Amino acid sequence: MLFSGFARRITSRTKTPTLRYQPHLHPAYSTRAEYKNKMSTGFEAERARITELAEAIKQLKTDGKPCDVELKEMLDLKKKVGQSTGKKDSGKGKIQLKTPKGTLDHGPSATLLRKQIFNTLENIFLKHGASTIDTPVFELKDILAGKYGEDSKLIYDLQDQGGELCSLRYDLTVPFARYLAMNSQPSMKRYHIGKVYRRDQPVMSKGRMREFYQCDFDIAGAYDAMVPDAEVLYIACEALTALDIGEFTIKLNHRKILDGIFELAGVPADKTRAISSAVDKLDKAPWTEVRKEMTVDKGLDGVIADEIGEYVGLKGKGWEVLEKLKSDDKLTAVKSAKEGLADMELLFGYLDVMGVLDKMSFDMSLARGLDYYTGIIYEAIHQSSAPPGFKTQPAVPAEASSSAPAPSKPKKAGEEDEVDESTVGVGSIAAGGRYDELVGMFSEAAGGKKGAGKVPCVGISVGVERVYSILLQKRKEREEREARGKETEVYIVSMGGNGLLKERMALAKDLWDGGIKAEFMYKNKPKPNAQLDACDRDQTPFTVILGPSEVETGTAKVRRQLGKEGGTTEGETVQRSELVEFLKRKLAEL
Amino acid sequence: MLFSGFARRITSRTKTPTLRYQPHLHPAYSTRAEYKNKMSTGFEAERARITELAEAIKQLKTDGKPCDVELKEMLDLKKKVGQSTGKKDSGKGKIQLKTPKGTLDHGPSATLLRKQIFNTLENIFLKHGASTIDTPVFELKDILAGKYGEDSKLIYDLQDQGGELCSLRYDLTVPFARYLAMNSQPSMKRYHIGKVYRRDQPVMSKGRMREFYQCDFDIAGAYDAMVPDAEVLYIACEALTALDIGEFTIKLNHRKILDGIFELAGVPADKTRAISSAVDKLDKAPWTEVRKEMTVDKGLDGVIADEIGEYVGLKGKGWEVLEKLKSDDKLTAVKSAKEGLADMELLFGYLDVMGVLDKMSFDMSLARGLDYYTGIIYEAIHQSSAPPGFKTQPAVPAEASSSAPAPSKPKKAGEEDEVDESTVGVGSIAAGGRYDELVGMFSEAAGGKKGAGKVPCVGISVGVERVYSILLQKRKEREEREARGKETEVYIVSMGGNGLLKERMALAKDLWDGGIKAEFMYKNKPKPNAQLDACDRDQTPFTVILGPSEVETGTAKVRRQLGKEGGTTEGETVQRSELVEFLKRKLAEL
Repeated sequence: MLFSGFARRITSRTKTPTLRYQPHLHPAYSTRAEYKNKMSTGFEAERARITELAEAIKQLKTDGKPCDVELKEMLDLKKKVGQSTGKKDSGKGKIQLKTPKGTLDHGPSATLLRKQIFNTLENIFLKHGASTIDTPVFELKDILAGKYGEDSKLIYDLQDQGGELCSLRYDLTVPFARYLAMNSQPSMKRYHIGKVYRRDQPVMSKGRMREFYQCDFDIAGAYDAMVPDAEVLYIACEALTALDIGEFTIKLNHRKILDGIFELAGVPADKTRAISSAVDKLDKAPWTEVRKEMTVDKGLDGVIADEIGEYVGLKGKGWEVLEKLKSDDKLTAVKSAKEGLADMELLFGYLDVMGVLDKMSFDMSLARGLDYYTGIIYEAIHQSSAPPGFKTQPAVPAEASSSAPAPSKPKKAGEEDEVDESTVGVGSIAAGGRYDELVGMFSEAAGGKKGAGKVPCVGISVGVERVYSILLQKRKEREEREARGKETEVYIVSMGGNGLLKERMALAKDLWDGGIKAEFMYKNKPKPNAQLDACDRDQTPFTVILGPSEVETGTAKVRRQLGKEGGTTEGETVQRSELVEFLKRKLAEL
Repeated sequence: MLFSGFARRITSRTKTPTLRYQPHLHPAYSTRAEYKNKMSTGFEAERARITELAEAIKQLKTDGKPCDVELKEMLDLKKKVGQSTGKKDSGKGKIQLKTPKGTLDHGPSATLLRKQIFNTLENIFLKHGASTIDTPVFELKDILAGKYGEDSKLIYDLQDQGGELCSLRYDLTVPFARYLAMNSQPSMKRYHIGKVYRRDQPVMSKGRMREFYQCDFDIAGAYDAMVPDAEVLYIACEALTALDIGEFTIKLNHRKILDGIFELAGVPADKTRAISSAVDKLDKAPWTEVRKEMTVDKGLDGVIADEIGEYVGLKGKGWEVLEKLKSDDKLTAVKSAKEGLADMELLFGYLDVMGVLDKMSFDMSLARGLDYYTGIIYEAIHQSSAPPGFKTQPAVPAEASSSAPAPSKPKKAGEEDEVDESTVGVGSIAAGGRYDELVGMFSEAAGGKKGAGKVPCVGISVGVERVYSILLQKRKEREEREARGKETEVYIVSMGGNGLLKERMALAKDLWDGGIKAEFMYKNKPKPNAQLDACDRDQTPFTVILGPSEVETGTAKVRRQLGKEGGTTEGETVQRSELVEFLKRKLAEL
């Protein structure tokens, strides 16, 4: 629907301005009726008068007579009524002109910059044979239930208005897994750019929002070990390079190796998750702090902690760290560790062939999403956000070292095992890993045979909002003029004459039909300066000037606009018949 | 976040599989605690065993040992527990793998076709100097309140989880007006393509969905009469022509003229809305039926109805209908009618200059959104949905006639004064009009000075879903192969050798770096036919074939794929060093 119901709005307000039932604010009234009944008292006179006025105004309008006086009285009355009830309702008599907490309007130039980011990423995904899907912005509550652990409290639920219980999507991965399971699709290379929703504490200044974009690329399907994984990491490098955000490093680790280390050290199974989430803090906190968390907070035996410490500080160039671990007989004796190391050896070989191995840092302290991922995990770190002492160029220390990174502020709650696209200032600008069981779990939960619906997946999510703020910052540093937000190429200006409206219209039509982006002022007799100002404001590159003489001689004067300061060029007189081609040539030269 | 919390999901399910509290389903238990308490009884043994198994499985995994048996037992137990409680919960033991009622997943080819529609429209809007904005998918409840009259019941509300009350947007117009008022923006040419939400009764077969796209273009600002209005109508013609959906006609009318007619006929002010909504049915029902609704259902004096009937059957070419009305002294004696006719005269003059007047039909029976619009209103009708006897080519009957259109099924409820983008089969494929007061009302409701925040607007909304189904239909009729949904240009195939995985990877990297869309099979030793089938399935135009001899001689064989039936061309052997350029040339020739 376009714009119906406006006058109805007046009417409804007129009839029952005080009766909006807001149970959350009126625990006292358990039913709408009860509330109405209570609220209807008072202001009868005002409401009656408002109804009167509404009728009168309608009549006056019908008669085409002015009704300002009546309208004003009605509006004042409605404010009075609205106000006093408004106080009861929400502490405000007026409606608030704002977007909901944690959400923003993206204006033209912000939208343009985001679109550029999306196009860059999209072109790369397409280059790799990906297709895209578009899933609903809300899912059945059960689909999301239990997927996000303690973060589930951040999920937006839709009100139960009868029918199904739904929630706004929290990410794009669970809907993707649901899609694959629902369609029994055994394999797919897909990307999805869309908004997701989290009732998190917004930090506008940091770009942490409740509504924000995610950009996911995933490869689903049963393939040979580490082959799709290698392509996903190649794509990550390709994407972050194409986005031109500056230096980055991709931290790599393997869930099975971490499992092996914990087993070797003797971490009790029931402590694995707690300990790994402690390990994950090593990129933000020094070992001593993390060790304290393990032993004091989480009651791990100090000896075990120290054994872990020997490993998790280890990071560096892929081959070097790998050799170091492979030569560790204690570790390689653990089956899962051995398997993980074999995977990494394969992966590094592939990344070598693809020429992106030097962007990787094999980092034993990376533990994100441990209980979720089933294979490799990775996190791309942007130079601007790497903690002090964390080198991003060269990608890794000259040789494998086991020095713990320098201290820095600890992560916020709820960020333990994720890159939150809404968070700026945390290291990750992209993250992901292999998750081989999510799709199968959907199939089984829906009653499918165990294992039948299993679809192994590996994927990555680019932190769009993070990339956006980095690019915005770069733009500011370069003192670039804000993006135009519109693409008008030609502004048609009338000088003298009688405004020449129809001549400008006819000219605009010619340009539009010729595929040229053109505007003119919607006035019969616009002032020359008003037109030129609009042209400067929008940074429109060319003006076509029409005056009586041009009309008479079937010509038009074309000027290159050089902006407020730069002024314009002399201008050339062009035959109307040749104008479109002339302008196309000029525009091509820009 | 990418994919955290999966194992946590098991855990949480394990610990409390039966305790999801669903108040709407358990009126009996007024508190979560009470419910928990009740529900916890029974299945203790099973739940205990499930916890045991979960631990065991974790340990087995840590040890890298198989745990299928344990996993199966656990899943079976969870189904058992889940099931019996599930019955209590929602009548189902398994989760449903589906999207919420009235929503759809758009697969790759559907998404591609929609993107083509959006690009076509976007390019046209940009050509006219429009910029785009991106507003949140939900707004404060108060912003939407009272804007949609009785249709407000179709608004999705977010659950009150503490904090503000929000609703999913119902259209893109109210958010736009809110945006203008909030930013005190006096003028803007904007387009917005986005999803909107209506808890309507979905009719999948007709494409009436609860989540669907809208594509709006609006010009806001105080300008000279009918100038932006003319451009919006020009854009409507440009857009519908560019979309290549076939013949269409744009029905035009003016609110003030209708007001004048009602006044002239003597319709009581309080009946205006009811009567105009009856008039609006004339494109679906014969006059006799509409007259009956006016007189019998709505108690209008038969004489008045007949007087209205004399006018509202009138439609035809702009100038002809206009002359007819202008020569009607009774009508022109009514101020508002006179004003409306003056507007139409101006408009037709402008549309004439822009060369689109012949697409218009001045139709006195068009009354949509009467109480909302303040000026011209219009509705674009596609040939496929015009009621029988309604000619679309030529745009209008040879001469102005007052013949009422042939009967046809009456509109569904809630469609009185809107084009519902989610509805297929109803005439409109685009609709809009002038609405000069919505923005001002926001400013005033927010406490601004009367009239201070007034921003006149005129706009149009294209029925994207309607256009989509028309194009899909055309595609089917042309028996076109479904759109690929992916754009892969080259598939790298290995023949013989040892699978040549790394050679294929290296080749892929070269092609990607060269900007060529390329894929290869993620297998060490893929079968030649498996690779060629994938290539045919995706309609990939070229294969690059690598065999031991090619690798040895530093060459590759390029083949044009002609699909399953067509087979392939002979194939040319190309030097690896020249491959990228060679393929680029070949692709350019496609």
